[in-house]
Amino acid sequence: MAKDKKLVEAITSMDVDFAQWYTDVVKKAGLTDYSSVRGCMVIKPAGYAIWENIQKELDRRFKETGVENVYMPMFIPESLLNVEKDHVEGFAPEVAWVTHGGLNPLQERLCVRPTSETLFCDFYKNDIQSYRDLPKVYNQWCSVVRWEKETRPFLRSREFLWQEGHTAHATAEEAEARTVQMLNLYADFCEEVLAMPVIRGQKTEKEKFAGAEATYTIEALMHDGKALQSGTSHNFGDGFAKAFGIQYTDKENKLQYVHQTSWGMTTRLIGAIIMVHGDDSGLVLPPHIAPTQVMVIPIQQRKEGVLEKAQEIQERLGKVCRAKLDDSDKSPGWKFSEQEMRGIPIRVELGPKDIENNQCVLVRRDTREKTVVSLDEVENVVPELLETIQKDMFERAKAHRDAHITDAHNYDEFCDAVENKPGFIRGMWCGDRACEDKIKEETAATSRCMPFNDQEHISDVCVCCGKPAKKLVYWGKAY
Amino acid sequence: MAKDKKLVEAITSMDVDFAQWYTDVVKKAGLTDYSSVRGCMVIKPAGYAIWENIQKELDRRFKETGVENVYMPMFIPESLLNVEKDHVEGFAPEVAWVTHGGLNPLQERLCVRPTSETLFCDFYKNDIQSYRDLPKVYNQWCSVVRWEKETRPFLRSREFLWQEGHTAHATAEEAEARTVQMLNLYADFCEEVLAMPVIRGQKTEKEKFAGAEATYTIEALMHDGKALQSGTSHNFGDGFAKAFGIQYTDKENKLQYVHQTSWGMTTRLIGAIIMVHGDDSGLVLPPHIAPTQVMVIPIQQRKEGVLEKAQEIQERLGKVCRAKLDDSDKSPGWKFSEQEMRGIPIRVELGPKDIENNQCVLVRRDTREKTVVSLDEVENVVPELLETIQKDMFERAKAHRDAHITDAHNYDEFCDAVENKPGFIRGMWCGDRACEDKIKEETAATSRCMPFNDQEHISDVCVCCGKPAKKLVYWGKAY
Repeated sequence: MAKDKKLVEAITSMDVDFAQWYTDVVKKAGLTDYSSVRGCMVIKPAGYAIWENIQKELDRRFKETGVENVYMPMFIPESLLNVEKDHVEGFAPEVAWVTHGGLNPLQERLCVRPTSETLFCDFYKNDIQSYRDLPKVYNQWCSVVRWEKETRPFLRSREFLWQEGHTAHATAEEAEARTVQMLNLYADFCEEVLAMPVIRGQKTEKEKFAGAEATYTIEALMHDGKALQSGTSHNFGDGFAKAFGIQYTDKENKLQYVHQTSWGMTTRLIGAIIMVHGDDSGLVLPPHIAPTQVMVIPIQQRKEGVLEKAQEIQERLGKVCRAKLDDSDKSPGWKFSEQEMRGIPIRVELGPKDIENNQCVLVRRDTREKTVVSLDEVENVVPELLETIQKDMFERAKAHRDAHITDAHNYDEFCDAVENKPGFIRGMWCGDRACEDKIKEETAATSRCMPFNDQEHISDVCVCCGKPAKKLVYWGKAY
Repeated sequence: MAKDKKLVEAITSMDVDFAQWYTDVVKKAGLTDYSSVRGCMVIKPAGYAIWENIQKELDRRFKETGVENVYMPMFIPESLLNVEKDHVEGFAPEVAWVTHGGLNPLQERLCVRPTSETLFCDFYKNDIQSYRDLPKVYNQWCSVVRWEKETRPFLRSREFLWQEGHTAHATAEEAEARTVQMLNLYADFCEEVLAMPVIRGQKTEKEKFAGAEATYTIEALMHDGKALQSGTSHNFGDGFAKAFGIQYTDKENKLQYVHQTSWGMTTRLIGAIIMVHGDDSGLVLPPHIAPTQVMVIPIQQRKEGVLEKAQEIQERLGKVCRAKLDDSDKSPGWKFSEQEMRGIPIRVELGPKDIENNQCVLVRRDTREKTVVSLDEVENVVPELLETIQKDMFERAKAHRDAHITDAHNYDEFCDAVENKPGFIRGMWCGDRACEDKIKEETAATSRCMPFNDQEHISDVCVCCGKPAKKLVYWGKAY
C-alpha cells in the first residue's frame, strides 16, 4: 500500500506554489519521470496515452487538408545546417553534435535535428522540378533535440516529441494561405479538443522563427496567468528556396523559386492541459483527449453481484466511450483519489444499494457534481455528460482567460499590470524593437503576439515609449 | 511528362539482377530517397504510409495483449550502456556518439540509442518496487541508430524506425510466456497482414541478441531465395535485472529479481514485402497493408459523364475499402503503369462503353486477371476480391517458400544446396559453434533458426562435422 499512499498524499496547493504544484501533478498522475540523461524525460503510459490521442486527432485533421507523412533522417550534416544564415544562428548554439560513428571520428560532424527545415529543403531541391510536383504538403512525427539549460517536464526539455509540417508551393499566396490554414487548424484543435481558448496572432520580428518571413502563433493562458505558446506556423517566403536552390519550371517553362512554410506542435501541449485545467486534486482532462473517460468504481465489491454488475456497466459504457473498471483490491476512497489525480472526467460509483435501486452515481471530475442515474439510462447519459463537461471546461477556461486580460495605456499602467494583474496585457506598440527589449528587460514580459482578430486601437501611443502606435500587442510573462 | 516517363521506364528484371531490381522498385515506387546523411534514408509518402499501416495494426494487436506505450530518451550515457557486459560488447562498436551539447563538450559522452534495454532497466530500477508493480509491459515507437558500413534502403540503414517492447515480470515462466506470445503475434501479423509465411524458431547461441538468454525469431524467404529475419523476441532471464539491480518485494516480503523480455520489428518489413511479393512491374502490396487498395482509372475521361461516374464509383468504394481516383491528365496507359509500379491491389477501369453497359473492369495487380463487373455490384465484389487476393498472395508466397527448402544430410549435399538451390536448407546440427563458424566461412550461409514446430530428426549426424546431431536447423544466406 506504500505506493498508493504516495499517490494520494496531498499535493502542493497551486495557490501556494504553482511551479511545485505542476511538478507534483506531473509526477503523481504518472505522466513522466526523470531519466539518467540530464534534461530528458521518460514519458510514462498515462502521459504517452495523452500524446497518442493528440497525435491521432491532429493527424486526422492534417490528412483532411491533404497532408502526407514522411520521415527524414535525425541527423543534419554541419554544412547543411549552415546553408541558411538566420536559421543556423538561431539553432547552432543549442544543438547536440555527433562526432563519432562506432569507433571512428566522422569526417563531418552531424547535429541531432533541432528542427528539419534544412533536411526538407535538401530533399525538395531534387524532388521538385516542375509545377506538376507542387504543392508538397509533408509532415513528420518525430523527436527533436535542443540543448536547453533549464528544463521542466513537457514545457522545456532537451528532447521532445512533436510534428513538423514542411510545405512547398508555387506561389507566395498559396504559401501564405497554408500558413494561416495550419494556424487555424491548431487553434481549432486546442479549443475543440483540449478545451483551451487561444489568441491567434503574429509574432513580432524579434520573436519570429529563425529564418522565417512571418511567424503566426496561438497563445494560451495558464491558470497562474502566464502565457504558453502552443503552436506556431511559419511562412518562409522564398528565403530557404533561394539559399538551397529549390526551383521549378512553371507552365511557361520558366524557372521559379518555391515558397515554403513550416508548422509544429509538441508535447508542450500536455503541459498546457495540466496548467489550464488542473486543480489541487491533480489533473483534470478534457473528455475529448482523456485516454480513459470514465472509471467505474464498485463499492463493497466483495458483496455478491457487485463486481459482476460493475463489469457489465463498464462493458456497456465501453461501447459508447473509453471506459475502464477499477477492480483492484484498494478501498473505494483510494480509487476515487487516484481517478481524480489522473483527471478521468467521470467516475461511476456503484454499490449494493445502488444495484438494488437499479441506479449508479456519476461524479464529474471538473465540478465534483454528483448525479444519480438509472442503470437503464447510463449509456445515454454518460456520453451527453462528457460533452457537457467538455463544453463547460472550455467556457471556464475562457472566462478565466478573459478575466485576466488587462489593457494598459501607458508604461505605468503596464508595469502595474505586470506586477499586480497576472495575465495578458493588451498594449499598443510603436513597432520598435527597442521597446520590446526594454519591456522584457525591465518587466520580464514579452510580446506574445499581434492578434489577428481584435486589432482594436486602444490608444494612439506606444505603451512603452509614447511615440505613435502601430499595432495592438498581447504582452505577458510566458513559459 | 519527363517525370512520369521515368516512373514507368522498364525496371531491371528481377531474374537479371535481383539487387538492382530491388533498388529500382524502391526508387520508382516512390518509397524512399537517398539523403545527404550517408547511410540514412528519406522515407517518402508511399513508403511511410505502409509503415503507418504496419504501426496501426501491430499497435492494435499489442494493446489487446496489455501493452502500454511509453517514450524513453534517445540518448544513453556511456556508463549506462556499459552496465551489462555482453550487451555493450554487442553494440558499442556500432553506435553514434554525441560529445558536444551546444557550444560545450559534455562531461560524459552519450550514444544515440541503438536499442533501449539499458534505458528501460534504468527506469524499471526505480519504478518497480513491489510485486504489485508487475508485470510492466511497455513498448515504444521510435528510431534507432546503428553505424552500419554497408546500407540498403529498409534492409540495413544507419537510422531505422521500429518498435521495441520491454517487459518485466515476477517469474521466469511469465517472461518466457511473454517472449513466445510476442513472437507468435509477430508471426501471425506477417502471415495475416503481410501475406508472408514465416518459420518460427530459436536462434543459436552464436546468433542470439547481445545480453539475451534466448532469442526467438521469425524467418521469411525472399523471392531470390535469401532469408530475412523479420522479427525477434528475447528472453533476458534475470541477467539485466542483476546487472542493474531491478528487484521487487514479493508477497512474502522477500527481495526478488525481475525477469525481462524485449521484442522488436522494424521498417525492414517493408523490404520484406517488396522482396516477397514484387514482380518486374514493381511493387505488389497485400491488400491488408496497402495504403490504397483500389485505384479507379477513367478511360476517355474528357467524354461527358465519365469523370463524374468514376468519382461516384470511387466514393462508393471509399465506404468499403481504401479507394482513390486518378483523375490526373495523364493517359490511361501511364496510370496503369503507375498503379502497377505502386503495387495497388486492384484497378478499376471505367470508360464510356462500360458506363453504357453499367459495368466496369476490375484488374488484379497480382495475377493481372480481369473481371467485368456490374456497377450495381461493385461495392460487394471489390472487398471480396481484396480478400481473395490477400489469401492467394499468401498461398503463392508459401508455395514458393516450400519449393525452396532443401534437406541436406551431409556436407556435400549442404554445399551443393547453397550453390545450386536458393532457399532454406534444413540440416541437423551437433550444437557446436565451430560448425556454424565453418559453414558461414565456407558457404556464407548462417543458421537462421532451430524451428519450434517441425523438429524432425532428418539425420543422426551433424550436417557439417558428422558427429551426433542435436537439433534441426534452418540454414541459409540472409539479408
